[in-house]
Amino acid sequence: MNNWAVISTWSMSYDGLVKAAELLKKDKSAGDAVENLLRKVESYPLYKSVGYGGLPNEDGVVQMDAAFMDGDTLAQGSVAAIENVKHAVSVARRLSLNKTNSFLVGEGATKYAMQNGFEMTNMLTERAKTIWQNKVKQQLQSDLHPYDGHDTVGAITLDRNGSLAAATSTSGLFMKKNGRIGDSPLSGSGFYADSHIGAATATGLGEDIMKGCLSYEIVRKMAEGKSPQEACDATVYPFCNDLKKRYGQVGEISLIALNKKGEWGVATNVEFPFCIAAKKQGPQILMANPGLHNNTKIEPISQAWLDDYQKQIKAPVK
Amino acid sequence: MNNWAVISTWSMSYDGLVKAAELLKKDKSAGDAVENLLRKVESYPLYKSVGYGGLPNEDGVVQMDAAFMDGDTLAQGSVAAIENVKHAVSVARRLSLNKTNSFLVGEGATKYAMQNGFEMTNMLTERAKTIWQNKVKQQLQSDLHPYDGHDTVGAITLDRNGSLAAATSTSGLFMKKNGRIGDSPLSGSGFYADSHIGAATATGLGEDIMKGCLSYEIVRKMAEGKSPQEACDATVYPFCNDLKKRYGQVGEISLIALNKKGEWGVATNVEFPFCIAAKKQGPQILMANPGLHNNTKIEPISQAWLDDYQKQIKAPVK
Repeated sequence: MNNWAVISTWSMSYDGLVKAAELLKKDKSAGDAVENLLRKVESYPLYKSVGYGGLPNEDGVVQMDAAFMDGDTLAQGSVAAIENVKHAVSVARRLSLNKTNSFLVGEGATKYAMQNGFEMTNMLTERAKTIWQNKVKQQLQSDLHPYDGHDTVGAITLDRNGSLAAATSTSGLFMKKNGRIGDSPLSGSGFYADSHIGAATATGLGEDIMKGCLSYEIVRKMAEGKSPQEACDATVYPFCNDLKKRYGQVGEISLIALNKKGEWGVATNVEFPFCIAAKKQGPQILMANPGLHNNTKIEPISQAWLDDYQKQIKAPVK
Repeated sequence: MNNWAVISTWSMSYDGLVKAAELLKKDKSAGDAVENLLRKVESYPLYKSVGYGGLPNEDGVVQMDAAFMDGDTLAQGSVAAIENVKHAVSVARRLSLNKTNSFLVGEGATKYAMQNGFEMTNMLTERAKTIWQNKVKQQLQSDLHPYDGHDTVGAITLDRNGSLAAATSTSGLFMKKNGRIGDSPLSGSGFYADSHIGAATATGLGEDIMKGCLSYEIVRKMAEGKSPQEACDATVYPFCNDLKKRYGQVGEISLIALNKKGEWGVATNVEFPFCIAAKKQGPQILMANPGLHNNTKIEPISQAWLDDYQKQIKAPVK
């Protein structure tokens, strides 16, 4: 029996990761584990960038993007700009069973979810609405750009049969335009999984991540023999440097990767907490930061950081 | 001064290619040339898979996908499931100038086009409507699958300054679900362009093309030193074989590629006509077919084939 392992983006994914680890320990499939992980994050109302409680677009509507990929068959399903669906990741997973029509957007995606019995609900919480209203007022007073807290939950699971799965879910850029989609639902950019090699998922400014197809590139570097950490470092830092030169700027970019042996890696150009659990590594939150030499500094997270994070996401909104 | 060159998918792109070649000869930019090529195809009412005259989705609505990529900066713009816009490729190109909100789908994409002065029109011709109505009748009588004539126009241009651009445009799978999108608007799958290396675009069953990020993979193989033809062959045929094993089947897939020297390549698992023009190669339509040894057979097109094609696209519809 293989090692099992799971890695996921941002500290908000911790509870979901613990649940996924339990499932993997019990021989559940990588697909079931990754879907459960993401559903947990989608359900939590205080995470402003994913699912219920996610911040709305400029029209005040929560539009979500999600994807699921089966590393055994390379089958994928994606939804983008979907509305009112409780678990976008589950719709994406269902679509991955289709030979055609596996990527649905907008009204068509929402209708599909309704017609196929997925739980529908208004995803806009009072809290998210208040934050949006404050932003609208602010924008009337100044020329603010969309808030860049675009924190996608992305996760990769490896089960005891050696199967990999990857999935993503996000409500996208706060105050994005109606219909804007990022990298999260896009194969090769937001996610990629191949059980023969490894998998990767991304979070950050989707518009820049898709310029480099970063998830696919990391998987490809692992196929050449690089460890997940080497593949992440050798992809993310050169790309960020190159894009700065050619495009003039580069947004926030963080990637996670896992290979078929259960080894993992991370690279990021910002402070980036992520979660990891594996057969020989208890569930934990770690902190990644860019190092000085195109490498990544990874440290345990401090209790002070965690306390501060909890306080911040629960802070009252006026 | 560099060589200029242009390559494009399917014989329907020939007139557009001739126009693009004229522009490139006159030192126009790769971006202008590729946009003009695609606009020409989008305008022609008898092409059933692109722009005006394109076949509608299952609801009888023409929803279009398009993308544009600037190989100098890696900037991209995409629209998907956009309606009523005469030139989806031009909306995509405009969006490529945005730092955020550069990929819009559905109602949001259509609204953006309206609000930004793009020409709007009903894209459903009487001819396309009749074909759709016939299909609806047929489907009531049997369990037919969506028609697989999903012929994306994709093109790559190299200008005399050494800049590459790529673009795609399609009305997608006939009888697709409302909101279904394919590979054409997806970075790395439907298109990719890097002026330091080369570019590629895809046409075929989008759901399968995105399982392999084939455009990106071809560019990456050119970066390793392969010629465009070697890169196309070494990407497309192994992927098709692999997908058949892992997924049980593989749809129609054709890719074109051009490198920064103006050399080109093609690979396909079906009969695939494409167009090429370069400084030393007059505009022409060539026919590609899969060879016996993971290679591609390329031949001049016969007058009989062309006559037959013209007859077929102009045949009356009852």
